[in-house]
Amino acid sequence: MARPRLQDVANHAGVSLATASRVLNGSSRQPGPELVERVRAAAADLGYVVNAQAQALARSRTGLLGLVVQDISDPYFSSIAAGAQAAAREHGRMVLLASTERDPDAERDAVAAFAAHRVDAIVVAGTRWSPEEDAPVATELEAFEAGGGRAVVVGQPLGPARVVRPPNAAGAADLAAALHEQGHRRFVLLSAPERVVTAQERAGAFTDAVAAGGGEVLEVIEQQFSRDGGYAAGDRVAEIAREAAAAGLDAPCVFAVTDVMAIGLIARLRDLDVAVPDDVRVAGFDDIPTLRDHVPSVTTVSIPLEEMGRLAVAAAVAEEGAEAGAVVGHEVVLRESTAR
Amino acid sequence: MARPRLQDVANHAGVSLATASRVLNGSSRQPGPELVERVRAAAADLGYVVNAQAQALARSRTGLLGLVVQDISDPYFSSIAAGAQAAAREHGRMVLLASTERDPDAERDAVAAFAAHRVDAIVVAGTRWSPEEDAPVATELEAFEAGGGRAVVVGQPLGPARVVRPPNAAGAADLAAALHEQGHRRFVLLSAPERVVTAQERAGAFTDAVAAGGGEVLEVIEQQFSRDGGYAAGDRVAEIAREAAAAGLDAPCVFAVTDVMAIGLIARLRDLDVAVPDDVRVAGFDDIPTLRDHVPSVTTVSIPLEEMGRLAVAAAVAEEGAEAGAVVGHEVVLRESTAR
Repeated sequence: MARPRLQDVANHAGVSLATASRVLNGSSRQPGPELVERVRAAAADLGYVVNAQAQALARSRTGLLGLVVQDISDPYFSSIAAGAQAAAREHGRMVLLASTERDPDAERDAVAAFAAHRVDAIVVAGTRWSPEEDAPVATELEAFEAGGGRAVVVGQPLGPARVVRPPNAAGAADLAAALHEQGHRRFVLLSAPERVVTAQERAGAFTDAVAAGGGEVLEVIEQQFSRDGGYAAGDRVAEIAREAAAAGLDAPCVFAVTDVMAIGLIARLRDLDVAVPDDVRVAGFDDIPTLRDHVPSVTTVSIPLEEMGRLAVAAAVAEEGAEAGAVVGHEVVLRESTAR
Repeated sequence: MARPRLQDVANHAGVSLATASRVLNGSSRQPGPELVERVRAAAADLGYVVNAQAQALARSRTGLLGLVVQDISDPYFSSIAAGAQAAAREHGRMVLLASTERDPDAERDAVAAFAAHRVDAIVVAGTRWSPEEDAPVATELEAFEAGGGRAVVVGQPLGPARVVRPPNAAGAADLAAALHEQGHRRFVLLSAPERVVTAQERAGAFTDAVAAGGGEVLEVIEQQFSRDGGYAAGDRVAEIAREAAAAGLDAPCVFAVTDVMAIGLIARLRDLDVAVPDDVRVAGFDDIPTLRDHVPSVTTVSIPLEEMGRLAVAAAVAEEGAEAGAVVGHEVVLRESTAR
């Protein structure tokens, strides 16, 4: 059986097509209550399904919200997506999802595709890249806002977007202070290439705080901003740990700029029979949900990932003139992986 | 600056609005090559962004694909979503995402909302529930297919949907056989309430295979189908392990019907100082990505989660008459958690 059309509902109710449309597509111009009731009854009778595109034309918005993440299978992003999804449902919005495999070109393509689907707002989550790599997506967001859309980032500023900013610098500085308090002085920094802005923010603030406390960063290891990048750093970290032990020095403390790198590093150290925290200490950043079942438990900076997704959607659907950004809190969580 | 409209492009190219629409919105009726070229040049000149809704009207499809998962922050579903997302991009489709928090009512609402947005296809991933709970979403999918949409499930059959079926029974039977081969005979089944069909398929096949091998299921523990459900089972499993040790019996082997339950169980056993695998053995199912960094490493049935997401999208976009379902493989992976 073919799906009933709006014209069928109008005929069944004995009203004009325009009247049926106003009732069922939520126009601000509604006919009298008797007609509204008659149209609704006819729609229920026929099993008419509302056409969201027609609703969008009537309301001048689509109810769609585009969410761009860098890897939906990474717990950092799936947590943000879960928060965004929950908030979108509460606001009656549908989420269009794009996962870009950490490729700035794919990010630009996703924004362009969302704009072509006339989403009301676009949320771009994840670290920014170099200014050259960010320029194309910033340009797309400018065109999108010029056309009446709303752009929000979870990360660093990008073009015209409102910003939900992870507390990268403050969190890393507080982590360094807490580790200093525990007695750590000899650090290794496990960071990512210079183009990864989140890694630079965390590494920079950590380095400054270590220096301020009279500690030392022995070495900076640069790897991919992922679990596999952390794993790849394991051999060099093991060497540093063995040199320290041979020289009778305190076991070094590695700050991995994201939890997934810390987890990959610990996996490789386990393969190499280097004990955490006895031979080397490891701290991460983010407090992703999978961390709670990790052995050893991992010291980190906890940031509210789901809440960040919620705040981004709140900024995306807020009325014009509402607060243009959001600040989120953080907490240093000391666990087994840095115990002395 | 306001975004240029199709009329502006038509004026700039000196053609009618209908001609500009046919060129830019991909209609099957195209004007001659000289006109096509002139319209494209005008669009590039003005920075015109194609309106996907207009394209949809011209092509009678929206290019949208709805994906319903039960919890996007669960690695099982974020892996399926990653595969679906990658395949959708390859097919030029956009993914609308809904995460239902394992609530059948939310599942029905998501399907209805996707249908109202005139998606071309809907993929529903995750276990089926009781027939009564499944009926409303099955009815929605029937209406959706009657209107020309395409429905696909990753899980058990549901209404008119094509099925990508996880090898639950075959995988659980092979796991039981492999554990028997290792010498295990005394099993505990950590399953979920009867309404969770995936849990029943795995538990049923495992129980039958254990009986066929002359082993014994000592007890069935029923908990929520989640990490926290596994955690909640820890106290009872610890008791069973202590009773076995006191009686001088072989340490029992727990089959948790999903990896996240196995991980939650092991976390609780650690709190209780019950050693895995020395005091109790634990096996899971799914081989979620986070498992590779788990200590101890966990015996499981590996199923290709990303591939299942890809297959679902392939079925969703396939031409009429293409293969109506897909079978995926599995592999038993024996790791530390069941070592004797």
